Amino acid sequence: MAAEIVNPRSDSESRNGRTGQDDGAEPLDSFDPAFALHRGGKMAVQATVPIRDKDDLSLAYTPGVAKVCSAIAEQPDLVHDYTWKSQVVAVVTDGTAVLGLGDIGPEASLPVMEGKAILFKQFGGVDAVPIALSCTDVDEIVETVVRLAPSFGGVNLEDISAPRCFEIEKRLQERLDIPVFHDDQHGTAVVTLAALRNAARLSGRALGDLRAVISGAGAAGVAIAKMLVEAGVGDVAVADRKGVVSRDREDLTPIKAELASFTNKAGLSGSLESALAGADVFIGVSGGTVPETAVASMAGGAFVFAMANPDPEVHPEVAHRYAAVVATGRSDFPNQINNVLAFPGIFAGALQVRASRITEGMKLAAAEALASVVGDDLAADYVIPSPFDERVAPAVTAAVAAAARAEGVARR
Amino acid sequence: MAAEIVNPRSDSESRNGRTGQDDGAEPLDSFDPAFALHRGGKMAVQATVPIRDKDDLSLAYTPGVAKVCSAIAEQPDLVHDYTWKSQVVAVVTDGTAVLGLGDIGPEASLPVMEGKAILFKQFGGVDAVPIALSCTDVDEIVETVVRLAPSFGGVNLEDISAPRCFEIEKRLQERLDIPVFHDDQHGTAVVTLAALRNAARLSGRALGDLRAVISGAGAAGVAIAKMLVEAGVGDVAVADRKGVVSRDREDLTPIKAELASFTNKAGLSGSLESALAGADVFIGVSGGTVPETAVASMAGGAFVFAMANPDPEVHPEVAHRYAAVVATGRSDFPNQINNVLAFPGIFAGALQVRASRITEGMKLAAAEALASVVGDDLAADYVIPSPFDERVAPAVTAAVAAAARAEGVARR
Repeated sequence: MAAEIVNPRSDSESRNGRTGQDDGAEPLDSFDPAFALHRGGKMAVQATVPIRDKDDLSLAYTPGVAKVCSAIAEQPDLVHDYTWKSQVVAVVTDGTAVLGLGDIGPEASLPVMEGKAILFKQFGGVDAVPIALSCTDVDEIVETVVRLAPSFGGVNLEDISAPRCFEIEKRLQERLDIPVFHDDQHGTAVVTLAALRNAARLSGRALGDLRAVISGAGAAGVAIAKMLVEAGVGDVAVADRKGVVSRDREDLTPIKAELASFTNKAGLSGSLESALAGADVFIGVSGGTVPETAVASMAGGAFVFAMANPDPEVHPEVAHRYAAVVATGRSDFPNQINNVLAFPGIFAGALQVRASRITEGMKLAAAEALASVVGDDLAADYVIPSPFDERVAPAVTAAVAAAARAEGVARR
Repeated sequence: MAAEIVNPRSDSESRNGRTGQDDGAEPLDSFDPAFALHRGGKMAVQATVPIRDKDDLSLAYTPGVAKVCSAIAEQPDLVHDYTWKSQVVAVVTDGTAVLGLGDIGPEASLPVMEGKAILFKQFGGVDAVPIALSCTDVDEIVETVVRLAPSFGGVNLEDISAPRCFEIEKRLQERLDIPVFHDDQHGTAVVTLAALRNAARLSGRALGDLRAVISGAGAAGVAIAKMLVEAGVGDVAVADRKGVVSRDREDLTPIKAELASFTNKAGLSGSLESALAGADVFIGVSGGTVPETAVASMAGGAFVFAMANPDPEVHPEVAHRYAAVVATGRSDFPNQINNVLAFPGIFAGALQVRASRITEGMKLAAAEALASVVGDDLAADYVIPSPFDERVAPAVTAAVAAAARAEGVARR
């Protein structure tokens, strides 16, 4: 059954002499369109200046390039004007928490990182390069990223497992003067907040009147909790596998202890299910399953954002029996909470003004801008725009750039 | 005089909102075409697959990408088939030996690294990414490159000062199973040997009958010496600032002691000038100046390859008074010894067959292929093809791939 893989791209057959042969590899499901699409990778580099003749060559390379190098050596800020540094982001992973697949290693993570890179380009006009590291030690990852940072205008951390992701991000933010952003945390949080803002607007409620319960205390859960609290949500409780994170639990990691310090005002303890009784908002970033009885116990007009992929914590059909607004992480249901709505514009805005970092204010501004794109079309099945809505990235970019200026982290 | 810089590229004005303003930077020579060309950098990333709608998105990213990741996790070799890994090279520098500018640091080296990257693409069809590191310690550079190697199919070391460049390359070749190639050494050596082969052919002489003197014992000088000896040149002497490298010198670094062990059969000592008396070949990779009297003292029908940029060790006009064949590193004289003739095809050939390294045999094959492109048009002012000769890269690529297979380092 080792069928030949047909590649839809015209240039792939000749690229580096590749052919459609698997060269003795085990037969895959060759007719699966995902494999066909991925053959030869999903990205390339291109020159943006012509090299047609020796005059071009002597400008783009020696001897002409020497003047530009000398100018940057004398005046370091010029690197932003005369190289691609300030429009290129490193998409850095160690392959330890890839999608729902877990710790599959750096090579196996590359298709995701390439995908991320081309989404940066497609939606934000931002160049991005996959950097999948063979080390998983926090110190080693931090040092490595610091060393390669001169080449990049920003760092997008991706699919690095918790709790290491928190420390890596924090330390890189301290060491570097370019934006460092762990998308699994903050991208998810921004899009979730945008959807929640619109769900609240639709039902005429203030964020401060809502009690939210988050299932999952990993990268996404922690970041969403922080952001909802920042945005003024009335109360936010986070549940991990052992139940609600609360100050009286003695098994908390430092991250969860910090979570307990600013969440769960109500002082809930016990199971996720018990916390959902009377709650206004459920946000699932855990991958578990929430029983229908627990959903039924929520307050009237609840919002259920069941974002696990491919299997939402609550199936949308079930959620709709009880909830006023239902969102998932899937593209085949309405209201997809998709990070691609946020990260391209967030980086584009930060790079545009050469922000030294991405602040809470910039993320909140991104969420507001994203929510506002929906405008007067707001409806229960339309609280968040489509990734293909062309208004999204420009709106987020402009809002993030303005917020960076307002917060004093812009450098142009 | 801070004039606005006009960028010839249509997309640059809107890219990340950049404009033609310098934003308060010191006025440069804004009308210099090199600055105009470099504005915004010289390269970009592009997607090679379409992302037009949610179906495309669900193939190139989640959920479709998960299958591809899982397949690579189970069968690691598939990373070469389903990502861009085996067509992308990291152009790695620490900015310590950039062109003739020296240690200008990683940011200031970026215009050169971008230039190199687009030459890889333009001439070899190979994608390349500039990685300018903020560390200069050998151990740190080696560890950093090892850690980011999962993302790349090869490593081109660039503009790293001697003698660190030798140890970095050696240790990376030991640690990695992908080609690691210091172009300042081997690219220069390959093109020099190709020119020398053709100069010898033109004058009906065998390489074994030639005595060569190399001025400069840095990266290029050492590599050229090794390669000429490998290729069978009769005798090769290398001179550094203190004179000819010979076994009786007591001030030699380990690298130069090794050089002394396989060069200078004639047992020369003393100055470069004295070594040139009666020599058949001069190869300048030093940047100094050779007095006309020394050139005049060479054997009849000599070859003078004065490759320092922008000022050749011997001006071509002077060289022509005594030499049968004259070459330089400059594009405005005939016979330009330009690395771009070699590195794109060498990497393209190595990547095509997934070579685990670039062997001496592959480099010799590259030099032969490059020399053979000149064919019957061989003349004193045409011993090496133009970088824009479209036969060059395919010839080098094919020869390198074949040599990799012959030497047992090809993996497909």
